[in-house]
Amino acid sequence: SKGRLWVGHQRVNSSSENPDPVKAKCPPVLVDDVYLNGPTLDVNGAEDFIRESMRIITEDAVKKATDVREKVCEWHSPEDLKELLDLQLTDEGESDTRILERCRDAIRYSVKTTHPRFFNQLYAGMEPYSMVASFIIEALKPSLYTYEVSPVFTLVEDAVLRKMREVIGWKEGGDGIFNAGGSLSNMYAVNLARYHHCPDVKELGLSAVPRLVLFTSQECHYSISKAAAFLGIGTKNVYVVPSDNRYIFTEWLNVRVCDQGAVPFMVNATAGTTVLGAFDPIEEIADICEKHNLWLHVDACWGGAALMSAKHKHLLKGVHRANSVAWNPHKMLMACLQCCAFLVRDKTGLLQRCYSARASYLFQQDKFYDVSYDTGDKSVQCSRKPDAFKFWLMWKALGSKELEQRVDRAFAMAKYLAQEVKKREGFRLLMEPEYANVCFWYIPPSLRDLPDSTELWEKIHKVAPVVKERMMKKGSMMVGYQPHGDKANFFRMIIISPQVSRQDMDFVLDEIDRLGRDL
Amino acid sequence: SKGRLWVGHQRVNSSSENPDPVKAKCPPVLVDDVYLNGPTLDVNGAEDFIRESMRIITEDAVKKATDVREKVCEWHSPEDLKELLDLQLTDEGESDTRILERCRDAIRYSVKTTHPRFFNQLYAGMEPYSMVASFIIEALKPSLYTYEVSPVFTLVEDAVLRKMREVIGWKEGGDGIFNAGGSLSNMYAVNLARYHHCPDVKELGLSAVPRLVLFTSQECHYSISKAAAFLGIGTKNVYVVPSDNRYIFTEWLNVRVCDQGAVPFMVNATAGTTVLGAFDPIEEIADICEKHNLWLHVDACWGGAALMSAKHKHLLKGVHRANSVAWNPHKMLMACLQCCAFLVRDKTGLLQRCYSARASYLFQQDKFYDVSYDTGDKSVQCSRKPDAFKFWLMWKALGSKELEQRVDRAFAMAKYLAQEVKKREGFRLLMEPEYANVCFWYIPPSLRDLPDSTELWEKIHKVAPVVKERMMKKGSMMVGYQPHGDKANFFRMIIISPQVSRQDMDFVLDEIDRLGRDL
Repeated sequence: SKGRLWVGHQRVNSSSENPDPVKAKCPPVLVDDVYLNGPTLDVNGAEDFIRESMRIITEDAVKKATDVREKVCEWHSPEDLKELLDLQLTDEGESDTRILERCRDAIRYSVKTTHPRFFNQLYAGMEPYSMVASFIIEALKPSLYTYEVSPVFTLVEDAVLRKMREVIGWKEGGDGIFNAGGSLSNMYAVNLARYHHCPDVKELGLSAVPRLVLFTSQECHYSISKAAAFLGIGTKNVYVVPSDNRYIFTEWLNVRVCDQGAVPFMVNATAGTTVLGAFDPIEEIADICEKHNLWLHVDACWGGAALMSAKHKHLLKGVHRANSVAWNPHKMLMACLQCCAFLVRDKTGLLQRCYSARASYLFQQDKFYDVSYDTGDKSVQCSRKPDAFKFWLMWKALGSKELEQRVDRAFAMAKYLAQEVKKREGFRLLMEPEYANVCFWYIPPSLRDLPDSTELWEKIHKVAPVVKERMMKKGSMMVGYQPHGDKANFFRMIIISPQVSRQDMDFVLDEIDRLGRDL
Repeated sequence: SKGRLWVGHQRVNSSSENPDPVKAKCPPVLVDDVYLNGPTLDVNGAEDFIRESMRIITEDAVKKATDVREKVCEWHSPEDLKELLDLQLTDEGESDTRILERCRDAIRYSVKTTHPRFFNQLYAGMEPYSMVASFIIEALKPSLYTYEVSPVFTLVEDAVLRKMREVIGWKEGGDGIFNAGGSLSNMYAVNLARYHHCPDVKELGLSAVPRLVLFTSQECHYSISKAAAFLGIGTKNVYVVPSDNRYIFTEWLNVRVCDQGAVPFMVNATAGTTVLGAFDPIEEIADICEKHNLWLHVDACWGGAALMSAKHKHLLKGVHRANSVAWNPHKMLMACLQCCAFLVRDKTGLLQRCYSARASYLFQQDKFYDVSYDTGDKSVQCSRKPDAFKFWLMWKALGSKELEQRVDRAFAMAKYLAQEVKKREGFRLLMEPEYANVCFWYIPPSLRDLPDSTELWEKIHKVAPVVKERMMKKGSMMVGYQPHGDKANFFRMIIISPQVSRQDMDFVLDEIDRLGRDL
């Protein structure tokens, strides 16, 4: 009646429609004015809708979204887009035809993060195997807490964690868990380090122990600060080591800590910083941590991919000495969002002890199988998505070798882009890239002959936001910009996807010049 | 060469293969032994693979998975399933043909949580609109932190949160955020209540303030305890109010708290407990909270759906007086996993102040649009999936009315099942269902004439695990069981999906009797 392709409301006499002979024999039952015979939703009847929507997804969200000749985005202001989308939720439903239009619109007005000209975040590109894996997950609706509910995905997660630990260099096992984001992985680390340092905190809380502090380098991700706030440690108890003083951790530990009666319990090192793509020297930090008995966490959410490359894994030299590592395969390795591993060197069940709440309705101990496969009590979540499957299926398809080639190619592409930036008039490289972040300023012709001064940099600071606005409104590409410390706004190109070629690098520089030349 | 349908490795001379005229003119470039001309991954070439995998997903993960004549699960022990799946990750990749087999196997050996005979968790069933929405999300790979990267999904989340607040009864606005699970929503609540009570905790940590305690009813979800551990409050500072004493909160507050110098800051009330489906009396708890100036959080992850029903929303009477509400549309409302809203009554930006870290690389203030649409700084995550879209699209399709009918039907179905349990010999109802949880014992013929004694209940305790093992191995259905307090193991039926009819209820009872009759 509403143009719906299925959903026949309450078929009281189901005998002619329902092929199940058991059901046909049942008399109708009415409870609280609701007829309860026969299902009111028949998924078979939804087949046409599902098929048509899959056609739209393949055409618009996969093919068109990744086509370099299409726009990266179709910009509308929030106010205009609200009008276009008609977002209100009402009492009456809409026809399938209308819903399919809505699907098309949602895709049309969304940013195409899989487009070859999307360089705005630390993820990009389309990985078909991983995408298919995520469709399977969405259709099956599994949740990881017990083996009985998610047998396949429980074992897949275990296999992926094992392999990732092997890549890190933990030869004798360890532990880990996939979870909803790198920020959460870092929080897991802070909490686990704290529990390791003082198991009583779990029961008694921080009010029962001395003030705990943690160290991190200045360039760390903001989730370390968020973790300190969320976990009750306090952001002021995150001691930030200036990046250019990163070799003097020891001195800091002695001076800062003893003076104030605080107790340090962990150091966070970053492998692949968000803005610059820089790597903290893990070996040296590990020496200090071992000497002072501090938990070493390596936030390799972004830089972990370098471990897949024989040529570049030296950037994380010493990572096997870490107590825990956060590594997001959804970034450079292109697993579908989200795919974030938190890996632990401990083999004694520390993770389980730290996180367990032993819910008796979920983790019954009188089950008929080995309940050590029930991973849910290691998690801070209850329902948890089997994100490891999205990485596992693509890894199976590509093999470690192709993952390595992709990583090597991203490094080479970043190097190429940095070379081009140095060659071209009006472009200025911020620093030689260590990884796949290429940071640079664009200086329009009107500013090129001015002397190097605060005034000049104030002007340069205003260039990137305008160029960004223009590229968004044109839809030709998306590149991020930001200030950083005392540095004026600069562009940050992130190179990931094998859908990208050096022609795209050339295009980006040409396009920035086209868009900003008159400024 | 490996049977891959696309991925041609490095086409150095791309002129004949690449339709883009710009690219054809470029000479080959070699950096660090990697050729950088032309993409090495062409998504268009993956079309056959994607199409074939979508066919498999539709056939196996949608149609077959929801077919009542198929098994809910094909049980294998972890050891056997490892053999069947061949999980190892290796250097070499595999052919697309092999990967498609792996997709089929992953589906085959997975539990079908969308099957009409899956009653094992607080979610079940297939919702085609929501599934399609989640496919769109997976294909587009959006992340919610800034409007510029996720314009559509940012506005969709805002619209859904608005509507949910309206349903709760907060007429004058408020705030909120979707996040990765109900447990996280409860953690958001505890942290926000703490921040509201004492904003200094964010910077200074818990070591700078008196011992904070929170109250919750005994039947609350275990995530409250996990939150206390994770957030540094300590599990012993969760004061558990016995369920049968829930009216004497005030006395507890006076006696327990003053005695021990602790400072209470929040009360957690549960609307729809996990095992029994019980509802705490929100009005009475709200009175106490207002009197003592305590933050009231309502964990309505499971029971929130009752708010959609004019007939049943009285169960949450007073919910509009709460300071925050957790509500998971992925449970009874059947949005795809995960879809979890954390809703806040505050209109002053408390959520933002509590969670913000002001990352300058992401939340630049010199953007060209209204940055109040950048929601990422309200979140404890960085990357965040646009889960609201999975609820929005189905709500648009079904309208509030059909959501209401579904909820009413689930209530009626639970009532029917409870009536049947009472009628049938060998079944014993634990309590009249308040919601869609129906809890009961099965007592096999051999135990029916024994006197009511500890010994009898010890025997009954052993029945459910065996029946569960047998139903899993047969694959006929999945129903959870658990002990609870001093109660022996009992079955917990959860009724959600409109794919379920009263015939399925009859089947469950018949099948339990068939499987357990000889015990």
